[in-house]
Amino acid sequence: MQNLNKETVYSLVQVKGTWKRKAGHNVKQDTKGRVSAAKIYESSSSNGTTWTVVSPITFTYTVTQTKNLLDPSNDTLLLGHIRDAQQLESIRSSTKPMKRFIVMDEVVYNLYGSQVTDYLEARNVVYKILPLPTTEENKCMEMVLKILEELHRFGVDRRTEPIIAIGGGVCLDTVGLAASLYRRRTPYIRVPTTLLSYIDASVGAKTGVNFANCKNKLGTYVAPVAAFLDRSFIQTIPRRHISNGLAEMLKMALMKHRGLFELLETQGEFLLNSKFQSALVLEEDLIDPASLSTRIAIETMLEELAPNLWEDDLDRLVDFGHLISPELEMEVLPALLHGEAVNIDMAYMVYVACEMGLIKESEKFRIICCMLGLELPVWHQDCTFALVQKSLCCRLQHSGGLVRMPLPTGLGKAEIFNDINEETLFRAYEKWCKELNSGSPQ
Amino acid sequence: MQNLNKETVYSLVQVKGTWKRKAGHNVKQDTKGRVSAAKIYESSSSNGTTWTVVSPITFTYTVTQTKNLLDPSNDTLLLGHIRDAQQLESIRSSTKPMKRFIVMDEVVYNLYGSQVTDYLEARNVVYKILPLPTTEENKCMEMVLKILEELHRFGVDRRTEPIIAIGGGVCLDTVGLAASLYRRRTPYIRVPTTLLSYIDASVGAKTGVNFANCKNKLGTYVAPVAAFLDRSFIQTIPRRHISNGLAEMLKMALMKHRGLFELLETQGEFLLNSKFQSALVLEEDLIDPASLSTRIAIETMLEELAPNLWEDDLDRLVDFGHLISPELEMEVLPALLHGEAVNIDMAYMVYVACEMGLIKESEKFRIICCMLGLELPVWHQDCTFALVQKSLCCRLQHSGGLVRMPLPTGLGKAEIFNDINEETLFRAYEKWCKELNSGSPQ
Ligand SMILES: NC(=O)c1ccc[n+]([C@@H]2O[C@H](COP(=O)([O-])OP(=O)(O)OC[C@H]3O[C@@H](n4cnc5c(N)ncnc54)[C@H](O)[C@@H]3O)[C@@H](O)[C@H]2O)c1
Ligand SMILES: NC(=O)c1ccc[n+]([C@@H]2O[C@H](COP(=O)([O-])OP(=O)(O)OC[C@H]3O[C@@H](n4cnc5c(N)ncnc54)[C@H](O)[C@@H]3O)[C@@H](O)[C@H]2O)c1
Ligand SMILES: [Zn+2]
Ligand SMILES: [Zn+2]
Repeated sequence: MQNLNKETVYSLVQVKGTWKRKAGHNVKQDTKGRVSAAKIYESSSSNGTTWTVVSPITFTYTVTQTKNLLDPSNDTLLLGHIRDAQQLESIRSSTKPMKRFIVMDEVVYNLYGSQVTDYLEARNVVYKILPLPTTEENKCMEMVLKILEELHRFGVDRRTEPIIAIGGGVCLDTVGLAASLYRRRTPYIRVPTTLLSYIDASVGAKTGVNFANCKNKLGTYVAPVAAFLDRSFIQTIPRRHISNGLAEMLKMALMKHRGLFELLETQGEFLLNSKFQSALVLEEDLIDPASLSTRIAIETMLEELAPNLWEDDLDRLVDFGHLISPELEMEVLPALLHGEAVNIDMAYMVYVACEMGLIKESEKFRIICCMLGLELPVWHQDCTFALVQKSLCCRLQHSGGLVRMPLPTGLGKAEIFNDINEETLFRAYEKWCKELNSGSPQ
Repeated sequence: MQNLNKETVYSLVQVKGTWKRKAGHNVKQDTKGRVSAAKIYESSSSNGTTWTVVSPITFTYTVTQTKNLLDPSNDTLLLGHIRDAQQLESIRSSTKPMKRFIVMDEVVYNLYGSQVTDYLEARNVVYKILPLPTTEENKCMEMVLKILEELHRFGVDRRTEPIIAIGGGVCLDTVGLAASLYRRRTPYIRVPTTLLSYIDASVGAKTGVNFANCKNKLGTYVAPVAAFLDRSFIQTIPRRHISNGLAEMLKMALMKHRGLFELLETQGEFLLNSKFQSALVLEEDLIDPASLSTRIAIETMLEELAPNLWEDDLDRLVDFGHLISPELEMEVLPALLHGEAVNIDMAYMVYVACEMGLIKESEKFRIICCMLGLELPVWHQDCTFALVQKSLCCRLQHSGGLVRMPLPTGLGKAEIFNDINEETLFRAYEKWCKELNSGSPQ
C-alpha cells in the first residue's frame, strides 16, 4: 500500500452544463450552479494519486394497489408509473399512440391474454405481447436473452416506454433482469399474478435467474418503475400456490407482526378458500382479511427493503426461511415450490429458536399449527442435517464470516443471531424430525 | 388513474435489528435507533394504497495510480481496494491465504501472465487465471457466461475476494458485467492495460457487451471496488492503440480543459513515441506530459461521471464523439477502433460547431491538426450523411426527445445543444467531406 499524504475533498458544482470540482465539503448552492451530492476525495503519494468517488444514486419506485387493472377505463397499466403531473397531462393529451412490450407467463396468457389484448386495442397501443413458459426450470439466462432479442426487434424508447411483465415471480424476476440489462437499464413494470409475487417479488428491487443449478445466482438490484397489484388475478391460481404465497406472508408475520400472525392463524383457511377475493358482504375494506393481510405483508416488507435496497446490510430479517431453502428448493426441483421450501426452512428454524429458549414450546406449537392450517409442508425428507450444515456453511462464507440467522424471539418479533452451536442445531434437527416427520400435511 | 387522497411520509428507524416506519420527514436519530435515508410515501384511494419508495444507495470506489503493480512487494493488487484501516490490518496479519479469480486479455496474458503468476505465487494466493480472447468481436453475452461458469467453479467469497480484470476496455467491460451479475453483485477490480481503458473504461461505473450488432447494448452501472492504474502496461501496446486512447483524452480536452488540449497539441507526438512511459530525466513528476495528461484526463472524467454515475442526467459532455460513432464502429467492425470512430465523430462535430459559429475557423483548424498529429482518422467513407441522420434520430429517441448534442464553444469548453437544423448538419457534412476526404492520416 502506498503511503497516503493529505486528502482533499472536492464537491461538484455544475456551471453551464459543465461539472467543476471545488475544494471543500460544503460548497454553497449559489445562483450560478447546481451542487451534486457526490464527492471526490483525492490524495497523493509518491506512486501517484488516489481518487475516491462517493456517489449516491436515488432509486424511486411505486407499488400501487388497483382494481380492474385490465378495464380499458383504468389507465394505471399505461400511465400509473408516471409521478409528474405535468408529464402525465401531456401524455394524456397527446394523440401519438403509446408503445408497449409485454411479457406474460404462458399460463397467465391463456387465462388473461384476450383481456390484455382487448385493453391495449381499446387504448390504441402499439404493442407486442410475448407469452413465455416462465417456469422455475426455465428461469435462466437463455430466457433472458430470448426476451432481449424480441425486445430489441420490437424497439422501445428507453425512457418512456416501460416493459411490462405480467405473471408470477419467475416471470417478474426474468423480465426484470432483461430490462435491467437492456441499454444498462430500461424501465419495467411488474404485474404480479400469484399471491407470492403480489406480496413479495413485486415489492423489492431484486431481479434474477438460476445459474449452475443455484437459485437466483445471477441478477441485479434494479427496482421496477412501478408494480401494479390487482388481487383479482389470484382467483385463478391453484390452491397449492395460495399456500405457497402464504408462506412468505407468514415469514413477515413471524419476524415483525404479531397481528398478521394471528390473522393467519384465525383466517388462514378462509383466505385459502376465498383465494384472496374480497368478501363482497364486507362494507369496510380494511376489515376484510384479504385486504388487511396483503396490506400488512407489503408494508412490513417495504419497511425492511427500503432501507436496504441493495442488501448492503447483511443482517436481514427477510432472510428468514431463506438460509436452507435455496439449496433444498434446487435439490428437489420441481417437487417443492419456493414458498414451500421456505416454510420447511422456517419450521426447522422455529425448532432452533425453541431449543435456544427464544420462544416457548407453546409458541412453537402455535406456529407449526398455523403452518399446517395454511396447508404448508413443515418437514421434508431431503432436508437432511448435512444439507442444513452445507447451507449454513455457504451462508457463513457469503455473509462476511457470520451466519446472521434471523430467529423469532416471540410471536411477531425476531432478532439476528450469530453464535449458534452445532449441537443446538442438531438437537433441534432431531426434535424437528421426530415431531414432524409424520406431521407433514395431506 | 386513481384519485389520490392525502399522502403520508414515513421515515425508517431501526430498533434492535427491526426496521419500523415512523410518520414524519425528519425523525430524530436518537439513542434507540438508526435512521435510514430512505423514505416511504403512502397514499390511499378507493382502489387501494400506493406506496412510493425513495431509497438512496451510495456507491464508493477508488481509482488509484500506482507503480510496479506486479512487484510482489506492492500489495495494491490484493489489498488496495480496502479503505478500512482496521480491516486492512486484520487481513495483513492473517495467515489464511487469499483467494483471487483473475481474468486476463489473452494478449496481455502472453506478455504479463508470468509476472502475474509470480506475483500471486510470491504472495501465497490461491488463484485461478482465466485468459480470454477479449476482442471487440467477442464482446458479447457468451463471453460473460463463460466467465461466470469458471468463476462459479472456482468459487469466491462475494464480500472479500474481488474478481480482478486485467486488460483493455473489452476485458474490463465484460468482466465488469459478469461480476455485477454474479450473486447480484460481486466486487471486481479493474486493471487497465491500454491507454484508452486507463483514462476512460477504468474511471466510471459502466459495464457492457455488444448485442444484436449494437454497441454495448447490454450492461449495468456497477462501479468496480477499485481501479489500479499502472502506466507501465502501456509500453507494449501498438502505436495505433496509443492514438486510440488519445482520442478519448482529446474528447475531455475539447469539452473541458484547454490546457490539456494545448498539451496534446504540443506533446502529442512525444506521447506517441514514448508510449506514456515517464521520461526518466524529469525530476518533477508533474511536468512530465504523460503524467500530467493522464491526470487531467482522469480528473475531468471523474468530474463529469461522479455526479451522474447512473447517467440519469441525459445532458452529458462525455457523450461528445459518441453520438454517431457507435453506429459507425459496429458498421465497419473491425476496421475502426473505438477511439478512432469517436475521433471521426468528433471531427465532424467540430465542423458542425464551426458551421454554427460556436468556434472560429482557426480553432477548427487547430483541432483537426491536433487530431492528425495524434495520428487519428478525421474522416471515414462509411460515415455517410444517412448514417449521421440515423444515429441522431436514434439519439433523439433514446434521450427523451432531445438530441442533446455536446459541441465545443471554444477550445476546452462546450455546451449541450438541442436545436440544430438539418441544413446546418448537412452543410457541415459537405464541408467536412470536401476538406478532409483526402486528409485522413497515413
Ligand atoms: N424478486 C424477488 O424479490 C422475489 C421474491 C420472492 C420470490 N421470488 C421468486 O419468485 C418465484 C416464485 O414465484 P411464484 O410463486 O409466483 O411462481 P411462478 O412464477 O412459477 O408461478 C407459479 C405458477 O402459477 C402460474 N400462474 C401465475 N399466475 C397465475 C394466475 N393468475 N392464474 C393461474 N396460474 C397462474 C404460473 O404459470 C406457474 O405455473 C421464485 O423463482 C422466487 O425465486 C422473487
Ligand atoms: N466502460 C467504459 O466506461 C468504457 C469507456 C471507454 C471505452 N469502453 C470500451 O472499451 C473498449 C475499447 O477498449 P480498448 O481500446 O482498451 O480495446 P481492447 O480491450 O480491445 O484492447 C485493444 C487491443 O490491445 C491489446 N492489449 C491490451 N493491453 C495490451 C498491452 N498492455 N500490450 C499489448 N497489447 C495489449 C488487446 O489484446 C487488444 O487487442 C470498447 O469496447 C469500448 O466500448 C468502455
Ligand atoms: Zn422468498
Ligand atoms: Zn468512448
